Parts: sequence; C-alpha cells; structure tokens
Amino acid sequence: MTGLAEIAGIGADPRRGGYSRHGFDRADLALREWFTAQARRRGLDVECDRNGNLWAWWGRPGDGAVVTGSHLDSVPGGGAFDGPLGVVSALEAVDLLRERGFTPGRPLAVVVFAEEEGGRFGVACLGSRLLTGSLPPETALRLSDSDGVTLAEALRAAGINPTRVGRDDAALARIGTFVELHVEQGRGLVDLAAPVGVARSILAHGRWRLTFTGEGNHAGATLMVDRRDPMVAAAQVVVAARRAALAVEGARATVGRIVPNPGGTNAIPSTVDIWLDARADDDARTRAVVADITAAAEAAAVDEGCAVTVTQESYGDKVVFDPALRDEVAAALGGVPVLPTGAGHDAGILAAHVPTAMLFVRNPTGISHAPEEFAEPADCAAGVAALADVLAHLAR
Amino acid sequence: MTGLAEIAGIGADPRRGGYSRHGFDRADLALREWFTAQARRRGLDVECDRNGNLWAWWGRPGDGAVVTGSHLDSVPGGGAFDGPLGVVSALEAVDLLRERGFTPGRPLAVVVFAEEEGGRFGVACLGSRLLTGSLPPETALRLSDSDGVTLAEALRAAGINPTRVGRDDAALARIGTFVELHVEQGRGLVDLAAPVGVARSILAHGRWRLTFTGEGNHAGATLMVDRRDPMVAAAQVVVAARRAALAVEGARATVGRIVPNPGGTNAIPSTVDIWLDARADDDARTRAVVADITAAAEAAAVDEGCAVTVTQESYGDKVVFDPALRDEVAAALGGVPVLPTGAGHDAGILAAHVPTAMLFVRNPTGISHAPEEFAEPADCAAGVAALADVLAHLAR
Repeated sequence: MTGLAEIAGIGADPRRGGYSRHGFDRADLALREWFTAQARRRGLDVECDRNGNLWAWWGRPGDGAVVTGSHLDSVPGGGAFDGPLGVVSALEAVDLLRERGFTPGRPLAVVVFAEEEGGRFGVACLGSRLLTGSLPPETALRLSDSDGVTLAEALRAAGINPTRVGRDDAALARIGTFVELHVEQGRGLVDLAAPVGVARSILAHGRWRLTFTGEGNHAGATLMVDRRDPMVAAAQVVVAARRAALAVEGARATVGRIVPNPGGTNAIPSTVDIWLDARADDDARTRAVVADITAAAEAAAVDEGCAVTVTQESYGDKVVFDPALRDEVAAALGGVPVLPTGAGHDAGILAAHVPTAMLFVRNPTGISHAPEEFAEPADCAAGVAALADVLAHLAR
Repeated sequence: MTGLAEIAGIGADPRRGGYSRHGFDRADLALREWFTAQARRRGLDVECDRNGNLWAWWGRPGDGAVVTGSHLDSVPGGGAFDGPLGVVSALEAVDLLRERGFTPGRPLAVVVFAEEEGGRFGVACLGSRLLTGSLPPETALRLSDSDGVTLAEALRAAGINPTRVGRDDAALARIGTFVELHVEQGRGLVDLAAPVGVARSILAHGRWRLTFTGEGNHAGATLMVDRRDPMVAAAQVVVAARRAALAVEGARATVGRIVPNPGGTNAIPSTVDIWLDARADDDARTRAVVADITAAAEAAAVDEGCAVTVTQESYGDKVVFDPALRDEVAAALGGVPVLPTGAGHDAGILAAHVPTAMLFVRNPTGISHAPEEFAEPADCAAGVAALADVLAHLAR
C-alpha cells in the first residue's frame, strides 16, 4: 500500500528490528505530520483534540459522524501493520469512495488515536481512554516514560496543552458510529480462508507491575544462603504465570518486560520489576489468573526474603461489540465471518460509549507485535474496499 | 577521605542509585582527569599506557617498581568504595610516606586500571587483561557497549590509539611487586574484628551469556499452547542457576542482567539474553556449576520450543596469591588476618605474572556492588597506614 510505503522509513528500530514508534516521540511526531499532510492533500480538515488525537474531516465536522481510523504508534520493535494499516486504509477508502462518486450523507472523519500500544507511558489506548474519561487526567499526566519524562511534559513539547486533557464530551458526541480496521492478530481468518472479517468481542485484559525488592550485593562475594535475590523471585513468577494461564480455559499471561536494578552482570539486583499482561474471556477468569499469579509472587518473595508489590496499571473488561451494528456490517460485506480477538483496541474503549465495529484483515502467519507481522497486498486492498463499502453504507 | 569526597559528585546515577562509572564514559573520563590532577599536584609523573591504564610515578619510572592502585570505574549503580578506595588510599599513602620522610629505594607507582568491572564492555579487568595479554586485542576491540559503541571507538574518542592495544611487556617489566588495596566484599574482617586483612585467594570465576530465541508475537492474541516464549525458558534457568550453585560447596551463580527483545509489556519476546556470573573454589567446581546450568538451559529451551546459545564472555581460574609475599605483608602489618574472597580484581590478573598481594579494608555490612557499600573513616585511615607500611617495606 502506498501509505505504508511512505512511512516505512519512520521509526525503524535497528536494535530490536521492526518499528519503535511511541506516543509523541520523534517517530510518532513525524507520523502525525505525515497524516496531517496526507489528509490535507485530500482536502480533509485536520484538527487535534484536547487529548492529542488527530481528526481529519470530510465535509463539515458535526455530531453523529461516521468515524474510522486506528493508531500510528507501535509496540517496541513492532510490525508495520498494527495501527497504520487502519489509518492508511481509512485514507484510501476515502479515495475509493470519491472515485465511486460517493458523497457522505453524514459527517465522516478519519481519526488517529494517540499512544494506543502504551509503549511509552505504559497505559494502552491512552488517547481513547482520556477522550472517553475512562482514565483520570491527573493519573495520566503523571505517567512517565523510561527516561522519566511525564506525559504532561511530552504533550507540552508536542504543542498540546496538558491542562485541557480529559473526558471530551463534545468530541464523543461527534462520533455517531466508529469503525476500526485492523490487521488480525491471530490466524482466525486464515483458518476460515477469508481476507476480511468482523469482530465479535475482545478478551478482558489488563497490565500489572510487580516490583520485587531484595538486597543488592556482590555476585561473587555473597554466599548463596545469605542472598535475598529479587531476580530469583521474579523468575519463579514468570514460570508461575505460564502455569496459571494454562489452568484457565482461554486465558493468556505474558511477561514480556523485566527490568532488574542495577542490572549489572556481577551484581545481585536490589529490585526487579516485571510487567504482567493477563487476559481471559471474562472479568472473573482474568481476575482469577491474576490472583493466582499474585499469590505465587507473594510466596516466591517470602521464599527469597524479598518483598513484592503488585500494581494494576490498566484494565478493561470484556468487550462485546454492538451486535446489531456487527450483523449490519457483516451483511453489508456479503456475510463475512465474525470472530473474537485477544487483542485490545481503541474500538474496545469506544464500544462502551458509541456503536462500534471492527474489520480484520487476514494475517497469513498470525504473528503480531513483531517484525514478521504481515498482510498480503491483495488482502489489504480487500480491506480498503470492505471499509469503503461499510462507510458508504453507514454514511448513506 | 578527602579523595572520595572530591569525586562524590562524579557519575552519580539518579535512576539506579549509587554510581555508574564505566570505562571511558563521561564519568570515567572525569575521574581520570581528577586522578591526573591529583597525581601532578603531588609531583608524580602521569602517563597513560597503550591499554588505557594510568600510571603516576614517584621518581623516575623503571623496571621492578613497587606498584599500588586499583580502578575508578564501577558496576552500574555501584558503591563509592569498590575501586576508588584503592586509588585514593594509594595517593594518601604517598602523602603519608612523605610526611614520614620516606624516600623509596626502588621506583614506586600508583596505577589506575581501566574498566575493571566490565560494566560497559562486558569483560571484567579489561585494562589488566590487555596489558598482560590474557585477552587478545582483536577480541577486545570488537567488544561493544549497549549503544553499539565498540571499545576501539571508545578508546579513539578518549585519545588512545586502538591499534597499539595489547600485551605490553615493557609495562609488565616495570612491575616488580603489585599491591592492591580494596574494600572487603563480604564480612570476613567483621567476624574477625579486624580493620585490615590480607588476601589469600580469589575464587575461579567467569561470565557467560545465554541467548534464548523463540517466536515474538502478540501477548493477547497468541494462545498459551502456540507459544515459543524465550522469557519462560530464561526464567527457568534463573531458578536452575540458584539450585546448581547450592549443589556445589562454596559455589555462587547469579543472573543480575536480563534483556528481553523487544521488551514490550504486550509482546512475547523473540529473544531473551541473560548473563550468568558463576564462581567456585576451583576450576572443576566452577565448570560443573556452569555445565549443570547449561544443561538446564538446553532442557528449558527444548520444553519451550526455543533455541539457546551459551557463550563464555570471560573466565579466570582460581588465584592463590604469592604465599611468600602474602606472609611478608601480613607480618609487616603485625600479623593481620589472611582471608579468601569471591570477588575478582586486577590483582588476580597480575598475580599470574608478578608477585602480587592485596589488602582488604573492613566493610561493616559486607554489602558491595550496591549503594550501601561502606567502610568506616577510621578503617579507611587504617587501610592507608597499612598500605604505607607495606610500600615502605617493599620499596625500602
């Protein structure tokens, strides 16, 4: 796709592979500029809302609009499709509708939500959570990145007034219907031999930070029996998380990030932080997995003479997308498959407030959040055509 | 001590606590300048050898000198004493000898060895290993820090010609006897109620890097049974390392550093690197511990559908310091205790080439490689006096 090719050079991560594009960092700001230019080239009016989300309007902005879009940021070392595919497809769907001579009967907008992955400030769907009021602004503004820069500072540096961050009822009222197109993160459509599908639901999911505190000391001079080593406690919890998730049908638990302090080869760490990503089909199952892992963490800490604190960084209950809209969208596309997902999205945040649907584009390997993430050009084109059909149907 | 107070502001690490001073980084270069100025203020002639080690000469440089000193770099987030105490005590011992009206009968030098902790380039005792030829220069120059800067580049930036790095027989010939003073890393002297002791031996020790390779993927969308998660494999090895060390009398095994790639909360890593620090009383026991851990790593990798590679980054066999010199030094100090240590030192590298001794200064908590590392001012003064006595005895 032309749009993906245009941004292919922005935010490449030579160390990790793939892309590292995080909310309001240099790469993200370049992507926001690219989006603004692309939207303006199409005669769309671009505005940045109070929470740093970008809106490009076809026609006069107004309440009850049909809104589509996704995000441009990535996980650290992520793929090229997660996020940008939805934004690029939205712009190309506008092109396609114009080629078809379509004029929307309702306002239509393309949106770019800020920091969807939480790769910089730790909370996923930051822009949509702030817009909908599901994250208090005072909590959000205090979030800091790994260099200690707060969200408030990052916003200010990007020219966004942090004192105006928070629930934005005017922006919310403008969204009559939201449709997000996204590369599938799994092999559901591969198994169904379909290029495009419609989302049924999103797993309940959240993030927890576990901090183990022991006693930093010399790796060579400290006897094994004298140690209070938080790395050993944390490692036991990584293994316990796998076991806890396997014990609950459909649950997933992942530790993808771990930070020992000080992190020297010849030093027993004084503290180790691990981040737990846990998901399951409903709130009860997710909470059960996390309770199991928390108990394992407390036991491991006691065993190692360490302390542990467990902090919930974000949480979202199971999302079931509006069934009427879902069936309407699937029917408008000639009866494409409807399928669930384990991945969180801005659409999942908006679904609690406005009728929301998602389209998925087939991913041949199912791999996502990794450089191998992929969608065939023909499937991407099918996604654009499907999105154009859905927008035409909704904005008729 | 005045010298420690003078450098207290250099290289403080606000994130980790303590000090992060690594070979040829900004803090280390500032410390090298401080040392040069202090030595010159005392009328000592300062030179930098081909491997980046600094030498300050009392009188004309010559073969068979009595040499004392230590290092100025630290582990990440390390204490104030490990390294600098030996350098500061050497300068203060020179002051004390002059106050006493002593004139050395042999050349006398204070040395600062480069990158003793391996905190930047991964190999401990880098400067003394290069000088003695125990590390091939072509291997060393290719070492790189976490930003991808090679040792060759760092040396060049510090004004040191990397093409001249390597075994330096002329520098080695100048060392008739080497004596390193160091804060004790353990509670041996506390238990013996002695402010100063003499080293008997250093454990065999080395560093190994284990790289686990799995399949990076989405933390929410990837079923537990479909995963090849290198973090789970690595965590099992952290736990196995503790078990392996406990199974061998006196052995220690530590994983203080772990780096998942990409390291995002919502991504299963594609690779995880862990660094193993393993030590025991002799080569056979150390090798047995590492073999046990390697076998556990291979089994964990197979269990998780991952691959693992194990690379030795450095190794040093057990060091027994020259018994005649050791007894001579202990006797010159009125029969202070003689004790072993688990910590590696430049003195351990030099011991294979020249008669070498170490003095330890009491550490009330035994903690080292952490900000809590400490020695009482009175014990530091006792260390300076003892070092002056030993230098006077050896250079008489």
